[in-house]
Amino acid sequence: MDIGCPNAIDDHIRMALREDMPNGDVTALAVVPEGCTASVDLVCKQEGVIAGLSVFSRAFELLDPSVCIEFHVLDGDEVAVGQHLATLRGDARALLSGERTALNYLQRMSGIATYTRSVSRVFEGTKTRLLDTRKTAPGMRCFEKYAVRVGGGMSHRFDLSGGVMLKDNHIAAAGGITQAVAAAKERAPFVFRVEVEVETLEQVREALEAGADVIMLDNMSIEQMAKALAIIDGKAKVECSGNVTLERAKDLARLGVDYVSCGALTHSAGILDLSMKGFSLIDRPSA
Amino acid sequence: MDIGCPNAIDDHIRMALREDMPNGDVTALAVVPEGCTASVDLVCKQEGVIAGLSVFSRAFELLDPSVCIEFHVLDGDEVAVGQHLATLRGDARALLSGERTALNYLQRMSGIATYTRSVSRVFEGTKTRLLDTRKTAPGMRCFEKYAVRVGGGMSHRFDLSGGVMLKDNHIAAAGGITQAVAAAKERAPFVFRVEVEVETLEQVREALEAGADVIMLDNMSIEQMAKALAIIDGKAKVECSGNVTLERAKDLARLGVDYVSCGALTHSAGILDLSMKGFSLIDRPSA
Amino acid sequence: MDIGCPNAIDDHIRMALREDMPNGDVTALAVVPEGCTASVDLVCKQEGVIAGLSVFSRAFELLDPSVCIEFHVLDGDEVAVGQHLATLRGDARALLSGERTALNYLQRMSGIATYTRSVSRVFEGTKTRLLDTRKTAPGMRCFEKYAVRVGGGMSHRFDLSGGVMLKDNHIAAAGGITQAVAAAKERAPFVFRVEVEVETLEQVREALEAGADVIMLDNMSIEQMAKALAIIDGKAKVECSGNVTLERAKDLARLGVDYVSCGALTHSAGILDLSMKGFSLIDRPSA
Amino acid sequence: MDIGCPNAIDDHIRMALREDMPNGDVTALAVVPEGCTASVDLVCKQEGVIAGLSVFSRAFELLDPSVCIEFHVLDGDEVAVGQHLATLRGDARALLSGERTALNYLQRMSGIATYTRSVSRVFEGTKTRLLDTRKTAPGMRCFEKYAVRVGGGMSHRFDLSGGVMLKDNHIAAAGGITQAVAAAKERAPFVFRVEVEVETLEQVREALEAGADVIMLDNMSIEQMAKALAIIDGKAKVECSGNVTLERAKDLARLGVDYVSCGALTHSAGILDLSMKGFSLIDRPSA
Amino acid sequence: MDIGCPNAIDDHIRMALREDMPNGDVTALAVVPEGCTASVDLVCKQEGVIAGLSVFSRAFELLDPSVCIEFHVLDGDEVAVGQHLATLRGDARALLSGERTALNYLQRMSGIATYTRSVSRVFEGTKTRLLDTRKTAPGMRCFEKYAVRVGGGMSHRFDLSGGVMLKDNHIAAAGGITQAVAAAKERAPFVFRVEVEVETLEQVREALEAGADVIMLDNMSIEQMAKALAIIDGKAKVECSGNVTLERAKDLARLGVDYVSCGALTHSAGILDLSMKGFSLIDRPSA
Amino acid sequence: MDIGCPNAIDDHIRMALREDMPNGDVTALAVVPEGCTASVDLVCKQEGVIAGLSVFSRAFELLDPSVCIEFHVLDGDEVAVGQHLATLRGDARALLSGERTALNYLQRMSGIATYTRSVSRVFEGTKTRLLDTRKTAPGMRCFEKYAVRVGGGMSHRFDLSGGVMLKDNHIAAAGGITQAVAAAKERAPFVFRVEVEVETLEQVREALEAGADVIMLDNMSIEQMAKALAIIDGKAKVECSGNVTLERAKDLARLGVDYVSCGALTHSAGILDLSMKGFSLIDRPSA
Repeated sequence: MDIGCPNAIDDHIRMALREDMPNGDVTALAVVPEGCTASVDLVCKQEGVIAGLSVFSRAFELLDPSVCIEFHVLDGDEVAVGQHLATLRGDARALLSGERTALNYLQRMSGIATYTRSVSRVFEGTKTRLLDTRKTAPGMRCFEKYAVRVGGGMSHRFDLSGGVMLKDNHIAAAGGITQAVAAAKERAPFVFRVEVEVETLEQVREALEAGADVIMLDNMSIEQMAKALAIIDGKAKVECSGNVTLERAKDLARLGVDYVSCGALTHSAGILDLSMKGFSLIDRPSA
Repeated sequence: MDIGCPNAIDDHIRMALREDMPNGDVTALAVVPEGCTASVDLVCKQEGVIAGLSVFSRAFELLDPSVCIEFHVLDGDEVAVGQHLATLRGDARALLSGERTALNYLQRMSGIATYTRSVSRVFEGTKTRLLDTRKTAPGMRCFEKYAVRVGGGMSHRFDLSGGVMLKDNHIAAAGGITQAVAAAKERAPFVFRVEVEVETLEQVREALEAGADVIMLDNMSIEQMAKALAIIDGKAKVECSGNVTLERAKDLARLGVDYVSCGALTHSAGILDLSMKGFSLIDRPSA
Repeated sequence: MDIGCPNAIDDHIRMALREDMPNGDVTALAVVPEGCTASVDLVCKQEGVIAGLSVFSRAFELLDPSVCIEFHVLDGDEVAVGQHLATLRGDARALLSGERTALNYLQRMSGIATYTRSVSRVFEGTKTRLLDTRKTAPGMRCFEKYAVRVGGGMSHRFDLSGGVMLKDNHIAAAGGITQAVAAAKERAPFVFRVEVEVETLEQVREALEAGADVIMLDNMSIEQMAKALAIIDGKAKVECSGNVTLERAKDLARLGVDYVSCGALTHSAGILDLSMKGFSLIDRPSA
Repeated sequence: MDIGCPNAIDDHIRMALREDMPNGDVTALAVVPEGCTASVDLVCKQEGVIAGLSVFSRAFELLDPSVCIEFHVLDGDEVAVGQHLATLRGDARALLSGERTALNYLQRMSGIATYTRSVSRVFEGTKTRLLDTRKTAPGMRCFEKYAVRVGGGMSHRFDLSGGVMLKDNHIAAAGGITQAVAAAKERAPFVFRVEVEVETLEQVREALEAGADVIMLDNMSIEQMAKALAIIDGKAKVECSGNVTLERAKDLARLGVDYVSCGALTHSAGILDLSMKGFSLIDRPSA
Repeated sequence: MDIGCPNAIDDHIRMALREDMPNGDVTALAVVPEGCTASVDLVCKQEGVIAGLSVFSRAFELLDPSVCIEFHVLDGDEVAVGQHLATLRGDARALLSGERTALNYLQRMSGIATYTRSVSRVFEGTKTRLLDTRKTAPGMRCFEKYAVRVGGGMSHRFDLSGGVMLKDNHIAAAGGITQAVAAAKERAPFVFRVEVEVETLEQVREALEAGADVIMLDNMSIEQMAKALAIIDGKAKVECSGNVTLERAKDLARLGVDYVSCGALTHSAGILDLSMKGFSLIDRPSA
Repeated sequence: MDIGCPNAIDDHIRMALREDMPNGDVTALAVVPEGCTASVDLVCKQEGVIAGLSVFSRAFELLDPSVCIEFHVLDGDEVAVGQHLATLRGDARALLSGERTALNYLQRMSGIATYTRSVSRVFEGTKTRLLDTRKTAPGMRCFEKYAVRVGGGMSHRFDLSGGVMLKDNHIAAAGGITQAVAAAKERAPFVFRVEVEVETLEQVREALEAGADVIMLDNMSIEQMAKALAIIDGKAKVECSGNVTLERAKDLARLGVDYVSCGALTHSAGILDLSMKGFSLIDRPSA
C-alpha cells in the first residue's frame, strides 16, 4: 500500500524539515553537545488507527541517516492509550529536531485513518465502497489519500488529470448533460469512465441516456436516491455524496449504492494524539 | 497582516496546482472550448470568519494571469450562510480547473480563523493572549499561522530556528532545568527569550532561579497554575498549554496568565464550507 | 487544445534555456551591442504540419518579456517550403540566444504533428481512432502528446497514474489474466476502465470473460485480429498495437477496431525543418 | 566517457520518473502484492549499438535502491536481435513501474549511437571527425551528446556558453564577417577558438583574413568545398555542415575536411527497439 | 557546532558543483581515463584557523560517494604554512573536478574563522561577546555564520524572521522610538527580545523608557558610549556596532558592553590560502 | 554587459530573499502598517566603482513588483562619498525587508569592480589583459565575474565545462605535458584552445612543442618569465598567474604578457560601503 512516487515523498518531507528548521534548531544546538547518542519512545495518547509510520521514520532518516527506529506496530493497526509504538535511537540533536515534523505527518495521517475506519466499518459486508475526495490540504494529498486507504477507504480520482467528472459548472459550460457527456466521450482519453454529477431525477435520466458510466447523486435525500437507483437499474455505477454522517452512511449502505464519497475523511478528521517520551542520553563523545 | 515571503507563497500554490493537475484537467479540456470567458461566484455555505482571500485569488492568477476577481469581503470578516463573497471572471477552463485548489486553501484557512475567533473571544478584555503552536500540516505553516492571526491569535515561534523552548526532552538531555537554561543563555542567539516547559511547582521554582524569561505550565490543573503564578510573581512571563477547551480558557483568563497556547487551533479546526456557484459562459471565440 | 499545466510548461522551457545557456551566450554578448533591437523571420524549409507555436514564443518571452512575435499560421496548419511563418521583433541578443531552444521545441513538435497527420489521414471517415503511447523523450511527454493531438491523434493514458493497463508482465505477476483483471477491478481507482494486452485468441476469450473493458491486441496478424474481433463482438473496446505502418493502418481501419496505438508517432518522427532568417538590426542605443 | 554532472543526471531521471508516475502506478499497485521480489530480462529486438546502460539502471535505483541489475554488455557494444542484455532483480512493483522510463532513455540513446556509428564508420581511417550539433530534444542534451560519443562522434560545443560560433545572423548584427570576428576576438573569453559560418567563397576569404580559427562551410556543394579548402590551405580548421547523407559523407571524407557536423544524429535518429521480457515473481512475503 | 539543515547544505553544494561543471569537466574527461583511482593532499599555504572541513568533504562525496578523505585537523584548529591537512583518495576525475568547488567553500570559511579569531581574542576574559551581522554573501549565510562561531564569535539574528531589530528606518516608519518599541512588543512574536538602534544619548533614554530589551549604540564615540552605559545602567543589554577595528575593540572591551557586532567578519575577511598537491594515480582499470 | 541567464539570476535572488526572510520580516510586520508607501535613498559611503544596479533593483521587484527605483548612476560609474545613487519608492515594508539582500549583492559586486578597476588601470595602454579566476563565492560566480568585467577585467573560462586548462594535477594524471596536451587535442571539444600551466622553463619548452595554444606561467619570478617569453616567442599566448600585487602588475605589463589572471579580484576584494538613508512614509491607507 505505497504512498506515491518515492522521490516526491522525500521532497515533501525535506520541504517540511526546512519549514521547521530553516537555519538549525537553536535550542538543541545550544543545550545538547555535538555527537551524543540518545533514545526516545513513540507513545500513543489516544485510541485509533496508526498510519504513516514510513513517513515518520523517513523524516528522521533525511535529517540523520544513522537514526534507527524499531516499530512495534504496522500501518493499519489499532493502537491504545499508553501503547508503546516505537523506539528511536540516534543522534540526540536529530531526535529532538525531527520530532515535530515527524509527528505532524504521523498524527494527521493517523487521525484520517482513524476517522475513515469508523465510517468504513458501516459498509463492511455490503457492496458499498467508501471513497475519498480531492478536499485535501494543499501538497498533502498523497499522504492523506494513503491514510484513507489504510482506514479502509478507496481512492476516488487523484486529481484533475486522473478522472473525468462532469459537475454542475461543467454541465453549464457544455450547455447540458447530454452535450457534456458527448464531449467527454469524444475528446477525453478513453481510459477514463465518464462520471456525471446530478441533483434531480430528471438529470439522472438525462445522464443515463447520454451514456454516463457513473452517476453521482449529490445531496439527495434517501428517498430521492432510492428513486434514482430504480431509474438507473444497474445501467451505470452509482456514487452518493454530501453530508455523510455515520447515521446516513447506514441508510446508504442499505440502499445498495456502489460508492459513497466523503470529503470530511480528509478535511475534518482531526489528529491522533501521539507523543515522544522517555528521552535519555546513551553516550556522549569523550572530550 | 502578510502571510510570508511572496516567492515562497507562490511556490507553494504552484506546487498545489500541479498536485491537482499534473497533466491538465481532462474534463475541462474535453467539455469546454478553448478561449471561452466565463463568470462564477464564490458563495458561503457556513457561518464563520474568512481568511486567505489573497491565496484564493493567487491560485487562479498563477493558472491564468487574466482571471479577475472582485471580492465583497476582507480577511477577518464574519460571513453568513448564503453570502456572496466574490465574483470571478476569466478563462472558462481556468475557472473550472483552479476551483478545488483555491478552495482547499481558503476553506482550511477560514476554518482555522473561525475556530481561533471562537477561542480568542474568551480572552477579550483580559491581558491573556492566545497563541498557536507548530502542530500544523507539513508545508502549510505560514498559511495556518496567518489564519490564526486573522482569527485573533498571536504567533508563537514559527519554527525551531525562531525561538528557544526547553521541553522535557531538552531538559533530560542537558541534565536538568538549571543546566539547560544556562546552556541556552550561553550559546543560543541572544535575540531570543529563553522559555522553559515545566510540569511541577518544584520545576517552576528551578526555572525561575535559573533565570528563565518565560515559563510554560504544561498540563497543570487550574489550582496548580494558581500556585505557580504566585511563585513566579511577575518575574517571568507565563504561558499555559494543554487541553485548552472553551471552558478551561475562561478559567485561564481569570487566572491572569500571559499566554495560552492551543495546538487544536491548527491541527483540528475543520474547514469552513464554501462553494463556487452560478458558472456561466460569457462569450466564446467565433469559429 | 492546451499543452498542460502552464507552470510546468514554463519550468520546462526555463530548464531548456539554461541547458543551452548556463552562463550567457558568449557569441551574442561579444558581437551584439547591449540594447539593440532587431527583427527576424521564422521560415519553413519543409512541407508539414506546424505545432508548438505557443512554446516557441514562450521561449523568447522567458528570455526577454519584451520580445514580440506575430504569427502568420496557427497550430495544425499545413505549411509549405519557403512559407513565412512568423515575424519576431525584440532585443537583438535575445533573438539570437533563444533561437536554438525555441526551434528545438517547434521542430520536434511539428515533426510529430506532421507524421501523425500522415497516419491519422488513413482513419478519416472510419470509427477507428489513432492513439499515442508513453514512448516519449523523457521530460517531453506533454509537448509530444500535444503534437499528436494537433496531428489528429488522440491521447492514450498520460502516465502510470492515469490509466490501468495489464501487460504481459502484470499478468505474470498476478498469475493470469483472470486474476489480474479481478485485482484491478477490486483495487484500482474505479474511475479507470480496465485494459488488458493479449497476444492469442485464447487470451482474448479469457480477458473477455474476466470483464476487461478494453482489449489490446498486441502484434497480431490481420487474420488473427479479425478472429479476435469476432470473439469480442462489441463486448469490449478493441485497441491494436504493433508495427503500425501506413499499409497496415489501412487494413486496421477496414477491420473496424476502435483504437490503433502507434509508438512511432513520438519516438521516431524526425523533425520538421524550420529556420530563422533575415535578421536585421532596427536600432541601437545612442552612445 | 561520462554523461555529465551526476547530480544533474539524477535530477533529470527523477523528473522523468515523476512525469510517468506523478501519483503511483495504479496498475502495479492493484495487481502486485506489496513486498514481492521478481526478476525480468532486458532483451534486444533490433540490431544496433547500445548506449545509456548507466541511465537505465539509475532509473530503477532511484525508484528502489534495492534493485540489482547484471549487465551482459557495455555501452558501445553492438547488439543483435534476441540478445539478452541484462537481468534485473528487485521489488516487483519497482521493476514494472520503472520499465517505460528506463527504456525511454535507453532506446533513444541507443538509437542515436546506432545511427552515429553508421555515419562515423565512413570516416574511419581518415582525418575527418564527425560532430554533433545543438539540435537536441530540450533537456536531453547531455544524454544525446553522450550517445553520439558512444557511436564514434565527437562533441561540438555543448551550448551557447561553451563555444563561439558566428552564424549569418551574428554577422548581420555585427555588420560583416570582419567586424564579427574582431568583436569575438576582443570580447569573448580567450579560451574559445573563433568559428565562422560561411556560404560563399568570398566569405571564406573574408573569414580567413579576419583571423577565424575555424571556418564552417554551410550547405556548399562538393565542388565549392574543394575550392574553399584550396583557399583556406590549412590556415584554419574546416567544418562542413548541411544534409550529411551517407553518400555525401564519403565525398566529404575524400575532400579531407577536418570536421563534419550532422544534426540528424540527434534530431532524427529513431529509437533502438528493446524490451523487458520474462518477468517472474521470485518470492512474496508470507502473510 | 552544526552548520544548518543538512538538506539545505547539500542543495547548496550541489548548486555550486553545477555552477562549476554544468556539462562535465572537459579537461578531466579528456586527459584522465575512466575508472582510475588517485590520491591527493590538502595542504595549508597560510597561517590561520581552519573551518568548513565537512563542507569540503561533502563536495567530493556528492560528486562521487566513493571518495574517502582522512582529515588530520578539526574545525577550529590553528594551521601552519606547509601543514598537511588531509589526504583524499578516490576516482581520479572526481578529485580533479571537485577541487575548486570544495576549496572555494573551505578557503572562504577558513578566512572568516581566521579573521574572527583575531578579533575575538581581544575580548577573551571579558564579558563582551563578539557578534556577526547579516552582511554575508547571498546564499552563503549559514556557512559564513558557522565560520564566525568556529572563530570564537556568536550569532546575532540569522535573518529578518529570527529577531526584532528597530533601526533608523523602522523608527521613521513608526513615528519614533517609543511607538516602534510599543508596536514590536504588541505585535511581534513574544519569543524575541526587542532591540533598538540608537545614535544619540537622547535616543538611549527614549529606548530605555520605552522598554527596549537591548540597545544598540551605532557609530558612537567611546566617550558617548561610556555615557550611554551610565544611563542604561544594566536595565538593558548593550550592543555596539560600527568600525570595529582591533584598537577600538580593546576600548569596547574595557567599557564593558555586552556585545560588539562586526560586519567585516563576513564581508571583508579574505580567504585562507589552501591547495591540493601531490596528485598521483594509484591504479587504472586493465584494458 | 549582461550578467547571465535571466532566469538563473532571478532564482538566485529569490533564494537570497528567502535566506533573509524565510517567514516574513517580524520587525517590519510589527511596526509598519500594511499598505503604506514610502521612499528611501541609496547613498554612497565610500569612493569606488558601482556594479550590480540591476541586481539591486531586481531584489526589490521580486519582493514587490510595484517598487520603483530611479538610478542616478550606471554600472561602471565612479562614485564618491555622500553621493546620492538612487531613489526608491514603494511599499514601506518591502523597502525595509529587501534592503539587506539588495545591498549584500550591490556592495559585494561594487567592491569587486572597485578593486578590479585599481588593478586594470595598470594595464591601460598595454596589450596585457587582466583576467579573473574561478575562485568565487559558491553560487555567486556570474555576479562576481560580471563585476570584474565592469571593473575592466576580462573573463577567463567560466567553469570546468567552458575551457581546457591542464594544471599540475592533470599533467600528473596524464603522465606528462606531452601526453596531456595530446589527449586534450584528441578528445576535448575542438572549440577550446588548450592551455597548459607550467612552473619551469623546461616545462615551457615541452608545452610549446606539444602544441599548447596558451601557456600559463605559474608563480614564476619576473626574470624567469622574461626567459619564458623569449622561448615562446609568439608561438603561443602567454598568461601569468600568482601573487598579482599592483607593483608586480606593472612589471608584468612591461614584460608584455598577453594575460594576467588574479584570484584576489573575487576572493579578497572587500565590499564597497553603501547605505539606505532618508526613509520616509509618503502615505498610509485610510482606516
